[in-house]
Amino acid sequence: MSNAATRTEHDLLGDREVPEAAYYGIHTLRAVENFSITGTTLAACPDLIRALAAIKQAAALANHELGLLDRTRCDAIVTACEEIRTGALHDQFVVDLIQGGAGTSTNMNANEVIANRALELLGHGRGAYGQLHPNEHVNMGQSTNDVYPTALKIAAAGAIRRLVAAMAALRGSFEAKSAAFADILKMGRTQLQDAVPMTLGQEFGTYARMLAEDEARLGEAALLIREINMGATAIGTGITAHPAYAALVCDRLSEITGIPLVTAEDLVEATQDCGAFVQLSGVLKRVAVKLSKTCNDLRLLSSGPRAGFGEINLPARQAGSSIMPGKVNPVIPEVVNQVAFEVIGNDVTISFAAEAGQLQLNAFEPVIAYSLFRSLGHLEAACRTLDANCVRGITANRERLRASVENSIGIVTALNPYIGYRNATAVALEAHATGRGVTELVLEKGLMGKAQLDAVLRPERLTRPQPTVAA
Amino acid sequence: MSNAATRTEHDLLGDREVPEAAYYGIHTLRAVENFSITGTTLAACPDLIRALAAIKQAAALANHELGLLDRTRCDAIVTACEEIRTGALHDQFVVDLIQGGAGTSTNMNANEVIANRALELLGHGRGAYGQLHPNEHVNMGQSTNDVYPTALKIAAAGAIRRLVAAMAALRGSFEAKSAAFADILKMGRTQLQDAVPMTLGQEFGTYARMLAEDEARLGEAALLIREINMGATAIGTGITAHPAYAALVCDRLSEITGIPLVTAEDLVEATQDCGAFVQLSGVLKRVAVKLSKTCNDLRLLSSGPRAGFGEINLPARQAGSSIMPGKVNPVIPEVVNQVAFEVIGNDVTISFAAEAGQLQLNAFEPVIAYSLFRSLGHLEAACRTLDANCVRGITANRERLRASVENSIGIVTALNPYIGYRNATAVALEAHATGRGVTELVLEKGLMGKAQLDAVLRPERLTRPQPTVAA
Amino acid sequence: MSNAATRTEHDLLGDREVPEAAYYGIHTLRAVENFSITGTTLAACPDLIRALAAIKQAAALANHELGLLDRTRCDAIVTACEEIRTGALHDQFVVDLIQGGAGTSTNMNANEVIANRALELLGHGRGAYGQLHPNEHVNMGQSTNDVYPTALKIAAAGAIRRLVAAMAALRGSFEAKSAAFADILKMGRTQLQDAVPMTLGQEFGTYARMLAEDEARLGEAALLIREINMGATAIGTGITAHPAYAALVCDRLSEITGIPLVTAEDLVEATQDCGAFVQLSGVLKRVAVKLSKTCNDLRLLSSGPRAGFGEINLPARQAGSSIMPGKVNPVIPEVVNQVAFEVIGNDVTISFAAEAGQLQLNAFEPVIAYSLFRSLGHLEAACRTLDANCVRGITANRERLRASVENSIGIVTALNPYIGYRNATAVALEAHATGRGVTELVLEKGLMGKAQLDAVLRPERLTRPQPTVAA
Amino acid sequence: MSNAATRTEHDLLGDREVPEAAYYGIHTLRAVENFSITGTTLAACPDLIRALAAIKQAAALANHELGLLDRTRCDAIVTACEEIRTGALHDQFVVDLIQGGAGTSTNMNANEVIANRALELLGHGRGAYGQLHPNEHVNMGQSTNDVYPTALKIAAAGAIRRLVAAMAALRGSFEAKSAAFADILKMGRTQLQDAVPMTLGQEFGTYARMLAEDEARLGEAALLIREINMGATAIGTGITAHPAYAALVCDRLSEITGIPLVTAEDLVEATQDCGAFVQLSGVLKRVAVKLSKTCNDLRLLSSGPRAGFGEINLPARQAGSSIMPGKVNPVIPEVVNQVAFEVIGNDVTISFAAEAGQLQLNAFEPVIAYSLFRSLGHLEAACRTLDANCVRGITANRERLRASVENSIGIVTALNPYIGYRNATAVALEAHATGRGVTELVLEKGLMGKAQLDAVLRPERLTRPQPTVAA
Repeated sequence: MSNAATRTEHDLLGDREVPEAAYYGIHTLRAVENFSITGTTLAACPDLIRALAAIKQAAALANHELGLLDRTRCDAIVTACEEIRTGALHDQFVVDLIQGGAGTSTNMNANEVIANRALELLGHGRGAYGQLHPNEHVNMGQSTNDVYPTALKIAAAGAIRRLVAAMAALRGSFEAKSAAFADILKMGRTQLQDAVPMTLGQEFGTYARMLAEDEARLGEAALLIREINMGATAIGTGITAHPAYAALVCDRLSEITGIPLVTAEDLVEATQDCGAFVQLSGVLKRVAVKLSKTCNDLRLLSSGPRAGFGEINLPARQAGSSIMPGKVNPVIPEVVNQVAFEVIGNDVTISFAAEAGQLQLNAFEPVIAYSLFRSLGHLEAACRTLDANCVRGITANRERLRASVENSIGIVTALNPYIGYRNATAVALEAHATGRGVTELVLEKGLMGKAQLDAVLRPERLTRPQPTVAA
Repeated sequence: MSNAATRTEHDLLGDREVPEAAYYGIHTLRAVENFSITGTTLAACPDLIRALAAIKQAAALANHELGLLDRTRCDAIVTACEEIRTGALHDQFVVDLIQGGAGTSTNMNANEVIANRALELLGHGRGAYGQLHPNEHVNMGQSTNDVYPTALKIAAAGAIRRLVAAMAALRGSFEAKSAAFADILKMGRTQLQDAVPMTLGQEFGTYARMLAEDEARLGEAALLIREINMGATAIGTGITAHPAYAALVCDRLSEITGIPLVTAEDLVEATQDCGAFVQLSGVLKRVAVKLSKTCNDLRLLSSGPRAGFGEINLPARQAGSSIMPGKVNPVIPEVVNQVAFEVIGNDVTISFAAEAGQLQLNAFEPVIAYSLFRSLGHLEAACRTLDANCVRGITANRERLRASVENSIGIVTALNPYIGYRNATAVALEAHATGRGVTELVLEKGLMGKAQLDAVLRPERLTRPQPTVAA
Repeated sequence: MSNAATRTEHDLLGDREVPEAAYYGIHTLRAVENFSITGTTLAACPDLIRALAAIKQAAALANHELGLLDRTRCDAIVTACEEIRTGALHDQFVVDLIQGGAGTSTNMNANEVIANRALELLGHGRGAYGQLHPNEHVNMGQSTNDVYPTALKIAAAGAIRRLVAAMAALRGSFEAKSAAFADILKMGRTQLQDAVPMTLGQEFGTYARMLAEDEARLGEAALLIREINMGATAIGTGITAHPAYAALVCDRLSEITGIPLVTAEDLVEATQDCGAFVQLSGVLKRVAVKLSKTCNDLRLLSSGPRAGFGEINLPARQAGSSIMPGKVNPVIPEVVNQVAFEVIGNDVTISFAAEAGQLQLNAFEPVIAYSLFRSLGHLEAACRTLDANCVRGITANRERLRASVENSIGIVTALNPYIGYRNATAVALEAHATGRGVTELVLEKGLMGKAQLDAVLRPERLTRPQPTVAA
Repeated sequence: MSNAATRTEHDLLGDREVPEAAYYGIHTLRAVENFSITGTTLAACPDLIRALAAIKQAAALANHELGLLDRTRCDAIVTACEEIRTGALHDQFVVDLIQGGAGTSTNMNANEVIANRALELLGHGRGAYGQLHPNEHVNMGQSTNDVYPTALKIAAAGAIRRLVAAMAALRGSFEAKSAAFADILKMGRTQLQDAVPMTLGQEFGTYARMLAEDEARLGEAALLIREINMGATAIGTGITAHPAYAALVCDRLSEITGIPLVTAEDLVEATQDCGAFVQLSGVLKRVAVKLSKTCNDLRLLSSGPRAGFGEINLPARQAGSSIMPGKVNPVIPEVVNQVAFEVIGNDVTISFAAEAGQLQLNAFEPVIAYSLFRSLGHLEAACRTLDANCVRGITANRERLRASVENSIGIVTALNPYIGYRNATAVALEAHATGRGVTELVLEKGLMGKAQLDAVLRPERLTRPQPTVAA
């Protein structure tokens, strides 16, 4: 049989030739022709394909239990789905990720591939839909409008899990650096101006803490996406579905995916609402904002080597310039910044798409999926490269950090409780104008005795609250 | 004393004349000159002023308990703060809401007004800072960097509470309409195309449900802003603060505000992190997105009166046109849409400002506050006008709704389990092409018997899952 | 007559009592009740009020010329409009800036105030609309749908003019600094890493150039808003308007405003299209992005005073901290950054509002106006404070800048053409590892002779393209 | 030679094995390891690869003319570049589109591939950089910082050209429909409420006009990207470049690309400024906003088939539902909406990246490129599918449209000049309340005579300005 061999399939628009070798069918073919937008097909999103297969498998099992689908067809569908879940036939998912129709073409693509594989398993030819039909059997009791958002949620759950793991690994590296740098005193800065002392360990500890909090927020957002609307069918009223079906398919799907899914209380609302995706994207935006801030700090602290802050060294990862010899740039934080900017833009796209939903359905879920999966995947990759190729190799310039504290005017703040804000201001201004040190000025003016001053300025006392030192 | 009377105050830049009548001082004066941006001053945000006063009161009490502030000064500060919390002297908060310096000028403004009112209570003249000093006594143990974000959180807590109340009231009205419309059958729509039947009660029920879920999300976001960083002082290391101070001031502040505040575990992180505001804004964006979708629906369902959907009637609130006589427009949903668009834009502003934080502080919190408080306040106002001036007065065009179902092709979906997707498609296409009804075609073709068909299409069966009807 | 005196007015909803003292009428009253959103009324936007008055004046003149409006009424309307254009009665514009109804309430408010003032001028009482009617006479030949967008454009034209003037002044200050710093050599930086030498004058010159280019872009965007749709009436078909009216009113309005306005070729398109506002906002976003980048640079270059870049000094404008004595912060650039973030957020709001327009009208123009006027006004204020309170007072730390070049590794780039990228890389790495200077290493390794090396590294040669120096 | 064969290459980090078959080298290899983010490599952007080759070709020619590069090497480089420009070796561009380092890795990838192909042409082995060096010869007189932004601009120029062509084709189809529908009267709508009559031709004409205006705006934005900074080298000072080089390379590059490029006046500014990309993205956002509005209209006008507006029919492109038989959805406009949402989000990403530039360079240009090229490409694809698969096949439901006008209340507006706004309002309210027609009520009340009424309401008079009709 040559490549050019075809079979004839039929839909409401008429007949079309489908490549005989294709597991997809006429609905998929038309969608490919209609949506040639990004060049990125469903195949680029294996999480989503596996989720679709899990749903079709669960539905077949539920329908069989309800006596609506015979054992033979059920078994064939289940086997086809299990194959797809282990990676088979992903190349048959050829529709563009951005597509019109609220995901109908994605659902149709899945129905057709599964039907044709099941037909094959049953000894029939592809396209013999009289034996087992994509819409009547594979899609039984379902609608795109419950299948597609449920698939997005299951796929997102996996992607969130991987992102959180990458964040946790990155956090571990920041925690290790925080511990390693616990005894390195440095000047803290506010508004880019020298402020008061702290340890480099405290500085790196904040990056770990921010990640920890974001991991917790992602965990909360993940809970929201466990609520699914299988059984809603077209608009949430459950038309054509058996009354016992919604609960049953949710149970089967939980078993298959290992995710404790729950059926939404109000299926009409759940079918049109994109709130869980908006919430998740909002949390991803938060992760992005804070990760970007962290990378801005790393680039700033490592600026130099000579005319910058020069406090830490990022590991050299590649030559930094095609013209400036020996230049090494903070390329890893820079790429993380860029991913963050993309995620923030994706969040705006998702807001637009969610707002545009009308009446009983949001037709724009595909671009929500497209944006969300990129945000999840790129953030994960960003965390992984930041961890492996940057944070783990950071070193501190201890000498420079120590000198900056000794040389600083900002330590005068520690003297506020002893000499008052107004005296301290005068000392600071004089130190700034003359280039002299704070301690010598305080002693010279007789504002404090040397013993008390030394006690107040002991490094370990500067970086945490302290009781007043007696004069 | 004429209006032109002044007193001389001093700061690190030198001397300045301050109006004698002013409770604010030189720091405030300079800020007014530096930040003439929006024309909207702190006075426009009484929540924030009250929060600042609560903080200063709590700090004075804590410092007195720790033996750092004498009873006389403490009492005067406390009394001044209580006056401000009940509404006094708000006109003395004259700094622009958008200001440089991470809120320093806001904190300074509060310190000066409280100090001068306390001085007055103690029988001293304004500006007699030798007796009671804005920075040394009112600001004791504090920094802008813990006071300002804490004040924002307390102010936001109040605004959230009011917003949730407005949402709950609006939800109540949607629930009442849902009950009132429970028996009105209509066509549901997906992708603006006629889909399958539902009740108007189900449609309005979703609007209530969406609000309920958003109220829950706001509740979660509100929990995050209970975490404060009082005791952090300049950068979170607690420099100049007594070790027992952080816990004490948190207790006093909780008592004063009635909000169960907690001290952040890592004060260095808490001082630089804007995550709680980003999260809150993200949830407000979610509220906005869904509220806007709801208003889009209301405008669509009430489109007409003759050439539109014409399913519901919004109460007339004003003449709709200066040229088209008798025209009534959906002005209330329209204004809610616009608030939603503003909130979504504010969220982008907040993302930018949060991302721009550097090292130990985010200098851009004022624009976060400015944006956040507008989002909270405008959403509350939007919910209130939508409730009072629109939703409560909505009526249904029962005749038109009933006819649309009887006349529909979409009911063919209910026949899928009996005649199959392919036969149903053929019936639908023929109905569309000929203008004939679905039921007559099904009967004519002998696809179902009349008794079974009537049973399947009973209205109460069309809007929820149903067991199969025997032929 | 007491304050409580009222007059009865009538609209399609029935009768209402309007305060006798009010120049506005029943339509305005209802709008105030419907739209209690921001608390910011039209009165806060005098540009817009003046523009409305100019339009009503031009329309009256055109209608009179066409024989549709008698001289007496025309004169009274014209006089009322001229009074308003010089600042009178602005307090009578009481509707919230964010309002439903595509600006209908704004137009109605103008019609009513002008009608009542004109009635007064004619010796009639307020509300005697039988003599001169807000809709029939003041609004003659008009609709909100041509009046409101036209008013926004005229108002924006003035605001753009002021913004461009503020940008030009700021540019002048940057140019002056560029000239003053023309001979100061410093290290340029890419990716925050030391790169190659430049002058501080070149660095400041870029800030001036960026402003110059943005001024040009604003000039282009200003051209687009000269296209108006007066004569369109309700939807652009010109219903109720005289065929000669559109051209005539455009001429009169150009004369009154001094802006060379043109009538759009396709009035149906012009009535529904918000493209000119989207374009203008996009350019404002561009201005904001670049201004923010400039301020980021100023904050970075002035970081320190000791533990930062410390290359320039911003003038001290206020005490920087309530706790850290003597601290001075870059508060002016910081406030400019925040305005920029607001403008970028406003652009998203405007995108949303513009996208949401439906069919023959965009109902969401009020929030476009609200956002656009804030962007314009706040950017102008930001440029003015940046100019007056920051840039003019910037000084350079010449010693530190000179030392950074002498001490740099980056000058090795200048040797590429003489010793090759690979040798230069080796020198750079050795300099970095040992802390030694580039020139001594080059000489030690015999890569270049001293005379040639000195010639290549002459400061004036390092900052512009140069022919190769012979060995 | 097996696949596993490698050659050793060296950079500042040490030695690495590069696959012998690879034309790229060690710098590319490291970049691939560092930036595993999107999975989308430079190869996905052939415009960019061709632009890079054009630049390298132009630089080689210029350097040869200046006597800096010998003929042999120049010829080899030129030939290699020409091969790449015709599509060869694109698979060797393996770096991720989102990368740290301001595009350095992209430039390095190009330098290495061209060097190795040139070496091959000269009879040397890959990696024999002693003969012809990626940085010293291919990159001669260049820096990533002038090459990369210049390449982006050349690539964007091509993409803009294709987008404008797609928009023009789409506009043509709208113009054809506008002509075909010129005589079909319908009700115009404002705020989704019935307004006044217009023709369907006028409605479709606006979609064409909006595109025409956007094409003009894109043309303006395209002019800005003709300004390049070749000759700037590292930071714009032209270090290492010959004084005559900038002008010469610009001439050669204009010849090669056919684009009339110009050298920026201030190369320091041009090297750090992303304004042209921000402007272009802003215009693309404008295109997206208006295209989305158009598609919203198409979906609304075709809503139904029975319970919606039902004014036009979009061509059926695929079965609309997996559950609802016979349902056809507006999938083509829906996919265009989604592309628009993506473009608007990309604009936010670009704003973030542009704002984040620091000092002499914007390190985040790769994500600007990534976002911009997706916006350009997806918009082009969206216009093409909207044209081919939707607009060309649109038909009108003439009967329904005609009936909607005859049945309307809105035609009362046309009577304003004859019966006054107040009488017209009364008629409209009575028509609405009773369901009666406007004309019968006007006649019944004796407000106008039948002859005059008929004359005023002649269809051809309702859709354009008209002189008053005598009674």
